[in-house]
Amino acid sequence: MLSKTQVKYIQSLGHKKCRDEEDLFLAEGPKIVKELLSSKNITIRQIYAVNSWIRNNPAVSVGVSEITEQELERISQLKTPNQVIAIVEKIKWKDEPDYKEKVSLVLDSIQDPGNFGTIIRLADWFGIKQIICSPNCADVYNPKVVQSSMGSITRVQIEYTDLLHFLMKNKEIKIYAAKLEGISITKIGKLKEGFIVIGNESKGISPEISNLPSVSITIPSNGEAESLNAAVATGIILSHISHSTL
Amino acid sequence: MLSKTQVKYIQSLGHKKCRDEEDLFLAEGPKIVKELLSSKNITIRQIYAVNSWIRNNPAVSVGVSEITEQELERISQLKTPNQVIAIVEKIKWKDEPDYKEKVSLVLDSIQDPGNFGTIIRLADWFGIKQIICSPNCADVYNPKVVQSSMGSITRVQIEYTDLLHFLMKNKEIKIYAAKLEGISITKIGKLKEGFIVIGNESKGISPEISNLPSVSITIPSNGEAESLNAAVATGIILSHISHSTL
Repeated sequence: MLSKTQVKYIQSLGHKKCRDEEDLFLAEGPKIVKELLSSKNITIRQIYAVNSWIRNNPAVSVGVSEITEQELERISQLKTPNQVIAIVEKIKWKDEPDYKEKVSLVLDSIQDPGNFGTIIRLADWFGIKQIICSPNCADVYNPKVVQSSMGSITRVQIEYTDLLHFLMKNKEIKIYAAKLEGISITKIGKLKEGFIVIGNESKGISPEISNLPSVSITIPSNGEAESLNAAVATGIILSHISHSTL
Repeated sequence: MLSKTQVKYIQSLGHKKCRDEEDLFLAEGPKIVKELLSSKNITIRQIYAVNSWIRNNPAVSVGVSEITEQELERISQLKTPNQVIAIVEKIKWKDEPDYKEKVSLVLDSIQDPGNFGTIIRLADWFGIKQIICSPNCADVYNPKVVQSSMGSITRVQIEYTDLLHFLMKNKEIKIYAAKLEGISITKIGKLKEGFIVIGNESKGISPEISNLPSVSITIPSNGEAESLNAAVATGIILSHISHSTL
């Protein structure tokens, strides 16, 4: 049985301000909670689960409180609550990221949580270990991002920083800027090092970043659609620079 | 001023059953309505718009009723209604599709409207002119599909049919089935003809389709994510078979 205070506290972690104050976030559903339980760099503070989840997961070494379906519905951030919610400590990465001899993603104002989560999952698929985000990107601990990244947030290191300052500080590393015009991604070949910059879907890459010395790369079109979804474009770019046969 | 009957009628077109009975669908927002107005194969029955849209679009040759923001909110299917709603006749394609010397997409149980709309937009981007869907795919006239396809539904011919029957009838055309194991898409080269089959995100391609003679194709991973979003996977596949440098 959850007290009113507990319900309020868990609900409050749906808001970025409270997540930042508490250094915690929420993760929901058996699949993601299972991934978090098996991640070395993750500390789960508390699990709230319905009876069926508890019976299926008898060996969990973290505190588990049994709740009813009705209680789950009250504390869930999802349209369709799914058995279990975990309160999790924000990820503390041990190593300072190193950008040399690696491909890193740089996200300029990706604000849709679903797109952002999908991009994190894509980075994980293609073995990209780090994403640098402008401060106005969606919050990686937003419940929708956690959900759509499908556990990949435990494997991809995400930082928020002023992009102009960051890119100028690391100017020995080449910038590849995704644009509507540029060199076809089919002609880039397999990349060993670089920052791939993806811009906001409607506004593209911001002018200050666009003005930095960079290679413009593009996805050639044979048709008439005006643009591609930012997550889809990221997937296409990563697939070509990861596995090109050039 | 809209009557109660009008409001009810427009709202009813949010449901597939009513769309099928009336042979109509809804399109919302200035961008999509503009695309529809300029499409040759589209007949708009009626436009409902707020004053600002009407002032910006003085030369529209279709019946336009001015409505208030409050009325728009009542008839809109979107979370954030956007100036204009059109009632549109379902698209009548003049030509029987021909699958020879063309690449066509075949969708097996793509049920998420957002994914489906994104796939239609991707097909349009890469110059794919036809999509064959299993009957349980999302409805192309679902407001969310219309929305996320961004006008591409006017350029990509979409049919619903029994896939097994369809593929067996057209068995002279090679099937490329997207799977977790198979030939890397980087090794397929540019395709001139074929059916690219994309399966349901969680269940994949259904067994009966999977058993047909086909080439299994896959997107190689360097990382640990378990799977890719169906729309993202479609984008990556289409980009490689459209522009491969092999």
